[in-house]
Amino acid sequence: MNTPSSLESLIEALRCLPGVGPKSAQRMAYHLMQHGRPGAQRLADALQLALAALRHCQRCNTFTESETCVRCLSSKRDASLLCVVETPVDMNMMEQTHAYSGLYYVLMGRVSPLDGIGPGELHLDRLLARCGDGVVREVIIATNFTNEGEATAHYLSEMLRSRGVSVSRIARGVPVGGELEYVDAGTLAQALRERRPVAG
Amino acid sequence: MNTPSSLESLIEALRCLPGVGPKSAQRMAYHLMQHGRPGAQRLADALQLALAALRHCQRCNTFTESETCVRCLSSKRDASLLCVVETPVDMNMMEQTHAYSGLYYVLMGRVSPLDGIGPGELHLDRLLARCGDGVVREVIIATNFTNEGEATAHYLSEMLRSRGVSVSRIARGVPVGGELEYVDAGTLAQALRERRPVAG
Ligand SMILES: [Zn+2]
Ligand SMILES: [Zn+2]
Repeated sequence: MNTPSSLESLIEALRCLPGVGPKSAQRMAYHLMQHGRPGAQRLADALQLALAALRHCQRCNTFTESETCVRCLSSKRDASLLCVVETPVDMNMMEQTHAYSGLYYVLMGRVSPLDGIGPGELHLDRLLARCGDGVVREVIIATNFTNEGEATAHYLSEMLRSRGVSVSRIARGVPVGGELEYVDAGTLAQALRERRPVAG
Repeated sequence: MNTPSSLESLIEALRCLPGVGPKSAQRMAYHLMQHGRPGAQRLADALQLALAALRHCQRCNTFTESETCVRCLSSKRDASLLCVVETPVDMNMMEQTHAYSGLYYVLMGRVSPLDGIGPGELHLDRLLARCGDGVVREVIIATNFTNEGEATAHYLSEMLRSRGVSVSRIARGVPVGGELEYVDAGTLAQALRERRPVAG
């Protein structure tokens, strides 16, 4: 095709991005070289910087530039509560509720047999050490309610309860503002099973 | 949100890629830092290399690593024919037909008033110089049959014809293998208007 080798390499390298196939990698490469050279330079620099600077917080496992992240060092958080989430995005979602003041553990993944990710790939040893430190009183599992998130929650709760840790799971049910007519039957069935007494 | 600044910068920098919004930039950044560090390093290197190595062929304007691209230097091409396309991808599509042995001029864009790209932004001076070199006998305009491609073709043909250059446009019509039932009315109308006599 007479494509210069540096352009071929760029197209190939762009395919490391999730959701980018050969066609869009090609479109991205042409765009960067034709209209986006300053952006391409910024991206190369940002990648180098992130690769050099980012690591995992030794306490909560999220991305951080220091050994321990700002949140884990905060004296304003309730260290007796530990919320387990799949990703840093999920942690941000929890924070945005302003309804949680405990600490976190970020799995950076989920049990997903189809992708070859079993419990062993999730490096749960640090989570276990954390739960056995005598400070954590309750572990709140806030993995997704997908099949994989549920499997992860099941595995974690078995593992933690066998070690005498108190474990809870965030509630499933009809979304706030949700109409029964538009909620799927599984969610509604769960909301029924997990019904709570109302104060007289 | 307590996102480390190098991660913020990476998310922001990924948005220079076409079709990548805030959500997918975030997903890409997390993926690269969690599961794709070797790929991230390759991407950074490939961007640097492409930025340093790639330039425009002085004859056809496509991407090349030398002053003049391999195709423009080939003695096997018919230099009296010049095909004008919008992008290097379009040039590759033309080559794959094996039905063209002339040379090319790649506009690296199209007239697109909505994006602020007028004829002035397309740097047509080199195309004009090329057409007036005494070697080119016919310019074949192979821009897309979109509104923008058609506007570009119209502008180019006016400009070239006023300078006495012989100009043609690739044909519109029913695609090979196409069924009339599934062809849009505009294409069919065009195929009718551009009908050709058949040999008895
Ligand atoms: Zn932390
Ligand atoms: Zn060339």
